Amino acid sequence: MKAEMALQMTRTDEEAQIRGLIDDWAKAARAKDVDAIFSHYAPDILAFDAIAQLQFNGRDAYRKHWDACMAMCPGPMIFEVHDLSIAARDDVAFCHYLSRCGGTGADGEEKVGWMRATAALRRRSGKWMIVHEHFSAPFDPESGKALFDLEP
Amino acid sequence: MKAEMALQMTRTDEEAQIRGLIDDWAKAARAKDVDAIFSHYAPDILAFDAIAQLQFNGRDAYRKHWDACMAMCPGPMIFEVHDLSIAARDDVAFCHYLSRCGGTGADGEEKVGWMRATAALRRRSGKWMIVHEHFSAPFDPESGKALFDLEP
Repeated sequence: MKAEMALQMTRTDEEAQIRGLIDDWAKAARAKDVDAIFSHYAPDILAFDAIAQLQFNGRDAYRKHWDACMAMCPGPMIFEVHDLSIAARDDVAFCHYLSRCGGTGADGEEKVGWMRATAALRRRSGKWMIVHEHFSAPFDPESGKALFDLEP
Repeated sequence: MKAEMALQMTRTDEEAQIRGLIDDWAKAARAKDVDAIFSHYAPDILAFDAIAQLQFNGRDAYRKHWDACMAMCPGPMIFEVHDLSIAARDDVAFCHYLSRCGGTGADGEEKVGWMRATAALRRRSGKWMIVHEHFSAPFDPESGKALFDLEP
């Protein structure tokens, strides 16, 4: 019973660590601090981002993409995390959330919408790292257009 | 050392079980067997599907969506799983893969493209169940259109 309680506490601690990581990540995204964002990514991250490419394989490829994205959005960045759900055991974890996010494009127009996010994490040398993330907007099958005006 | 080897074997077994589950799921998708697909979903699944809505909360809501999707695609279904990567510990697992998938629309036109998939699983009463899945196509930030012609 005591061992079970201890295990439960450990699990809660791990989930709290991951919650802290996602909070940090979102803060870094709002601050447009790409170094801080990338401090949470494993070197071998495989990313399915919302735009441009099917996948980004490895931190270097993903970093080039992030730098290009930041150049497209010169204004302030909006990134809110909602409905975050986390599960972690030993050195494997996943989480998912909805994000109200957007920014100001090169044309000065503000674009804000809801996106979906899933992250997969591994603990390496005691530190949780994002090894996979998946961001997306759903699309309308009739028009083929991404749907930015959906609300949760 | 022996305990470590036993643990490693268990991990490999769990990953093999999940690989089998994803294979079964893909076979069911190709056969358009929605009951077989849903045998792998937890009642409280939260799905981020590629089309139509931000999220589907629970098996019933997701089932209605699948039935509607199947009605849109009367012809044969293509669903290939590529680059499947899995991590599992205890009762928590995640996996991700690329899928070459498509079908024949109500207009008789075949649409095939590459999509991204991430799934999160929990083991409940000894059986792995998908508790979360995320399917998507990336979009072009200029046109807002989903990109179906990308290759891995």
